[in-house]
Amino acid sequence: MKLKRSERIVVMTEYLLNNPNKLIPLTYFVSKFNQAKSSISEDIYIIKNGFKEEKIGEVKTYAGVSGGVIFTPTLVEEDAVKILNEFVEKIKEGDRLLAGGYIFMSDIIGNPSLMNKLGRVIATVYKNKEIDAVVTVAAKGIPVAYAIASILNKPVIIIRRDNKVTEGTTVAINYVSGSTKKIETMILSKRSLKSQSRVLLVDDFMRGGGVLTGMESLISEFDAEVIGKVIITQCFDSVREHEEDYLYLSKINNIDEYNGTFDVKLGNVIEKLRQAENEELKNE
Amino acid sequence: MKLKRSERIVVMTEYLLNNPNKLIPLTYFVSKFNQAKSSISEDIYIIKNGFKEEKIGEVKTYAGVSGGVIFTPTLVEEDAVKILNEFVEKIKEGDRLLAGGYIFMSDIIGNPSLMNKLGRVIATVYKNKEIDAVVTVAAKGIPVAYAIASILNKPVIIIRRDNKVTEGTTVAINYVSGSTKKIETMILSKRSLKSQSRVLLVDDFMRGGGVLTGMESLISEFDAEVIGKVIITQCFDSVREHEEDYLYLSKINNIDEYNGTFDVKLGNVIEKLRQAENEELKNE
Repeated sequence: MKLKRSERIVVMTEYLLNNPNKLIPLTYFVSKFNQAKSSISEDIYIIKNGFKEEKIGEVKTYAGVSGGVIFTPTLVEEDAVKILNEFVEKIKEGDRLLAGGYIFMSDIIGNPSLMNKLGRVIATVYKNKEIDAVVTVAAKGIPVAYAIASILNKPVIIIRRDNKVTEGTTVAINYVSGSTKKIETMILSKRSLKSQSRVLLVDDFMRGGGVLTGMESLISEFDAEVIGKVIITQCFDSVREHEEDYLYLSKINNIDEYNGTFDVKLGNVIEKLRQAENEELKNE
Repeated sequence: MKLKRSERIVVMTEYLLNNPNKLIPLTYFVSKFNQAKSSISEDIYIIKNGFKEEKIGEVKTYAGVSGGVIFTPTLVEEDAVKILNEFVEKIKEGDRLLAGGYIFMSDIIGNPSLMNKLGRVIATVYKNKEIDAVVTVAAKGIPVAYAIASILNKPVIIIRRDNKVTEGTTVAINYVSGSTKKIETMILSKRSLKSQSRVLLVDDFMRGGGVLTGMESLISEFDAEVIGKVIITQCFDSVREHEEDYLYLSKINNIDEYNGTFDVKLGNVIEKLRQAENEELKNE
């Protein structure tokens, strides 16, 4: 197949975007398009510039036998702020306050496009960390965990609250729910996580913090290391906010059940983005 | 910002890929790149050809005030077969047979890249159906449901097995598990699904068929309509296979617990892809 250069660039752009953080040998494109390596290199240079100008991501090329090209999606702070504001505005919309001061979030979690965008913001924060797996708890942390893991090109591991026969041998821990004070169980299939793995913990909602503590204690049973902790919506102030490796996208406060009102604001994610960028500049 | 044409095409390609099945006004690109509409139209023509040659998807342009461009990702049968074979081969790999004849699938479900590819295959089957939402049951149907819904640009609705306070008012149904014969409950938040919605049901595993029947009965409580039913792995032969609107990606049979062996084969998905393509040709 001989495509025009501009069409070839379209096809290569698509391939890179659908294979983030994966080393693609130049020979893949050379044989696919039946083109000289030099032409393919020029094509990649154009894509790299386009991505750089628009801050879509970084394209790195590696020479040598095991060389190739790797695309790492990124975001500039400006775009991250836009996405996060869209998210916070959605929380403010409509009648979300439920009995007991809980917040209805299922429609927001159910928006794949928004979840993908939030995943991109979070993946940008962790793009230079070595992470082996994204770990979440069923069910509502799953969408954003997959969005992050798709970009990082890593597996997702799902902790369950119920012991299912389809998990094989499992490790279970008990934890105390921070808000209800009930004893709950968390289960992870024994074969799903290798010891010494470096994991990113993701959950959708934090109130008392019991679930996150439970996740950490379960992870330590596997001798794995927690590299970061991500919470989509945090309810109330938390001591966690001051932990170095803790990121939260939004915070809800001042819940007034009688009047049906609450305050929402952005979490510490922009700060974390800046930190990651500064670290990167320091290492360059 | 004035990019070179080739760089502009890279950026536009990225935008279309990240916004599937969404009408993007040409004026968006006109003002973004500060270019004449005619140049933008030519750029889109190049992208359209690249996508067409490589069968990445369809780019349709609509003239007029409310006009613009819509990108619909697709797959050719050859690529679908490759993806599905990768999936079936993964099921065959390793020691998956659990007590009770269950199959360990968590590592496969936990592979975001594979889930996205399976989602693309399934979304291609349903690309010409009017679908308002993708409905799944927590937890393992969620990844592929999001992969499908991301492409169709529709929300995901998650049915739960446990009643969570964060769901607000819920509708619950009881169903009998086909394999364990136990009575189980399924719950859906009342506000998550509008009546008359047209939904695609997705679940990861089917053995006795009780879960799928439960989902259908819950959906009917909402006066919603089931447009299609998708099962990732079906265990044993099922009468369901002959239902017009039923799709399964793989089938497991001849489970031999004593020797730890079972057979896996491809489901009826290629047949369904062909049917969808034939229907499209007929309507053209």
